[in-house]
Amino acid sequence: MRLRNIKNAREQLTAFEDLVLANPQANRGYWKNVFGNEQPIHLEIGMGKGKFILEKAISAPGINFLGIELSESIILKAARKLSKYQLNNLYLLNLDANNLDEVFGPEEIDKIYLNFSDPWPKTRHEKRRLTAANFINYYKELLSAEGEIEFKTDNQEFFEYSIVSFNNNSFKFLEINLNLHKGNENSIITTEYEDKFREKGNIIYYIKVKK
Amino acid sequence: MRLRNIKNAREQLTAFEDLVLANPQANRGYWKNVFGNEQPIHLEIGMGKGKFILEKAISAPGINFLGIELSESIILKAARKLSKYQLNNLYLLNLDANNLDEVFGPEEIDKIYLNFSDPWPKTRHEKRRLTAANFINYYKELLSAEGEIEFKTDNQEFFEYSIVSFNNNSFKFLEINLNLHKGNENSIITTEYEDKFREKGNIIYYIKVKK
Repeated sequence: MRLRNIKNAREQLTAFEDLVLANPQANRGYWKNVFGNEQPIHLEIGMGKGKFILEKAISAPGINFLGIELSESIILKAARKLSKYQLNNLYLLNLDANNLDEVFGPEEIDKIYLNFSDPWPKTRHEKRRLTAANFINYYKELLSAEGEIEFKTDNQEFFEYSIVSFNNNSFKFLEINLNLHKGNENSIITTEYEDKFREKGNIIYYIKVKK
Repeated sequence: MRLRNIKNAREQLTAFEDLVLANPQANRGYWKNVFGNEQPIHLEIGMGKGKFILEKAISAPGINFLGIELSESIILKAARKLSKYQLNNLYLLNLDANNLDEVFGPEEIDKIYLNFSDPWPKTRHEKRRLTAANFINYYKELLSAEGEIEFKTDNQEFFEYSIVSFNNNSFKFLEINLNLHKGNENSIITTEYEDKFREKGNIIYYIKVKK
């Protein structure tokens, strides 16, 4: 998500403390308490401006959603939009995916969404890809027994890499679609990027795996 | 491979006994003896008119090749063409893939090629797909310790199905290409079908796995 930095984004975020949790580390192991119910918890890593997770949270009130975004400026943009909806099944976290372990205990999460993550095409950046072995093996600890990951991208090489990575790290494949939008134009909750890529005619790749 | 049946194809095949082995069951467990050396053995299941395996055999004299084809008429076509080359690292077998176990013992094969196999799109025909669990688990017995399978198709749904099937049956993914010919136009040994599909602009999908 490319966006000019917003000045004082961190300070401005404090105005949205009901939505963007200030100290998520304090909730490690207690996320069900945060939501106050036993609903499954779904996590989007790299939520960008939040279109996808907002629409998910509206469409599935029986599921709790957490959106993670590294950039203060972007999560501020998301907060400005999403706070208007006053949803009680959605929180946002300004967090680096490398620090997930500080915020989530074992098996706290039921599904992880990775949508159009940065492909980091250079080999020397492989470990930064959110589907690299170091990340996906950590997701396994986070995920509940039947926990799933859904991954979408329009980047062919990144998708190929990710399929091999999920397979080589013993994830079980549940579903693959090598042209997600063909025949499903109106039934898919999309991200901002996804809409742009789709308009350009890019193929969108999709895989759902479980641990 | 659609082709009109050739009358007396079976009888005509006897003229090519040096190439199309008449009683392959007799060689079960002794395929290295048939070739008279210790070279790896690669098997194409559903070789059609034989363009792919011919070019492979010519380009890799250090490997022995076996081409399997169910249709007598098609293997006759292949035999007429391939017999002219007098290759000592290539035999053809007129065989149903369901009867592989009568012809090959454990770990006799080092690589299996599945090229543009029939996708059998109807669910009730799933077990006929050459990447269905019943087939690929049998390939495991056939394959040597480091034995590989290479699979190509232009059928999106069949490729999706096959990826899930290889994963769910514990194959290790080595390589995937979701647009094989892009950037590799002249370096790939193709089948007759592949050339046609490529001319039509179809995407060719490719995966290499090991057991």
